[in-house]
Amino acid sequence: MGEHYDFSMPLSEAMETQRAIRRLKPDPVDDALVLRLIELALKAPTGSNAQNWEFIVVKDPEVKAKLARRNRQAWNLYGGLGRRMARNDPKMGKILNAVQWQADHFEEIPVIVVACLKGLRLFFPPIVSTSYYGSIYPSVQNLLLAARAVNLGAALITLPLWSHLSVRRILGLPWNVTPCAVIPLGWPQGRYGPTIRKPVHEVVSIDRYGNRPSAQPGAAQSL
Amino acid sequence: MGEHYDFSMPLSEAMETQRAIRRLKPDPVDDALVLRLIELALKAPTGSNAQNWEFIVVKDPEVKAKLARRNRQAWNLYGGLGRRMARNDPKMGKILNAVQWQADHFEEIPVIVVACLKGLRLFFPPIVSTSYYGSIYPSVQNLLLAARAVNLGAALITLPLWSHLSVRRILGLPWNVTPCAVIPLGWPQGRYGPTIRKPVHEVVSIDRYGNRPSAQPGAAQSL
Repeated sequence: MGEHYDFSMPLSEAMETQRAIRRLKPDPVDDALVLRLIELALKAPTGSNAQNWEFIVVKDPEVKAKLARRNRQAWNLYGGLGRRMARNDPKMGKILNAVQWQADHFEEIPVIVVACLKGLRLFFPPIVSTSYYGSIYPSVQNLLLAARAVNLGAALITLPLWSHLSVRRILGLPWNVTPCAVIPLGWPQGRYGPTIRKPVHEVVSIDRYGNRPSAQPGAAQSL
Repeated sequence: MGEHYDFSMPLSEAMETQRAIRRLKPDPVDDALVLRLIELALKAPTGSNAQNWEFIVVKDPEVKAKLARRNRQAWNLYGGLGRRMARNDPKMGKILNAVQWQADHFEEIPVIVVACLKGLRLFFPPIVSTSYYGSIYPSVQNLLLAARAVNLGAALITLPLWSHLSVRRILGLPWNVTPCAVIPLGWPQGRYGPTIRKPVHEVVSIDRYGNRPSAQPGAAQSL
């Protein structure tokens, strides 16, 4: 109550230590904190500044149990495939263990946020599709970064959404509100920390695809 | 050269003052800074940690001119519609003026970043589509926030991508690399500052859609 949360962590530190935190304590998360996270999420851009987002904050054990069931159904299929493909990849094995933990303990996660978009969703042409999701994922990333800044565990998942029809029924979403992403929130059992990514020169091209900048130190000065 | 950029702006300040900056100076942007922005973008999450992103940094005037032409083609159609719909909305009118400026001066923008995803893009089912774009827009938002932290102007646009076929040809993208978002970068003519958004209780529901938290002060403490 009246607790004050501090989101002043340096931007680069928040980004460099953001990671999916899946193992969460069942301890409650202050409602004011959840609303503040969403308030910061709302600062992200949306296409044509439409701000047509909707955030469902799920705390009711019954609603959570239904989402947990949908999540497990998808995980039973997808996780089995993942295990077979990651047999010789210990790093991926660790991720899969964490996702398994999340599936097993979904009902105990204190808060599940479902980020939705209001409005007609078209599949085609691609520019419509990318503009659509480009109006929700920047806000989701704000939410994740804000959670990181206060050491609240969070992750971005989509598995519980494999059946939109079912999720619409569970959350009472009208036909024109589409669930896009799920963010389980809770105080972490583990902790945030630096992540490893591909080096930037492996994913950057100059002017035309495949024209990589040199990896030599200092090369950044002359793309 | 060797200049050091400081991304330590408090996270909440970066988020609360992020806005689309479309009027940009033609002055060059240091290559090292562009690479550093992309490096921070790479810290964002991707589905199954696939990191299958590709960033094309466009500085070549010829390539820029081709993208500018595609952008204007889409804007001529979409902007006209927008003007008619926003006739009585001065705030939207200001946005449209800025987008018009951007279309008119596209060739003078020093750096255009095109964020792409590598891999098969499917339209169906929706969970595949949302997971796909959920693997690029969090990184785009990191890039925008990082630009904001160093006062570099940036915006998220998709209009130049209306014809994927054409953009693939312009940038030499193979069939399995899909352009998702365009971020023009440059030193701003205007400046960053606080934005106005819908109040959080208008876009949040508790447990089921439409179950809004009370707007009364202090209501956040009891969702």
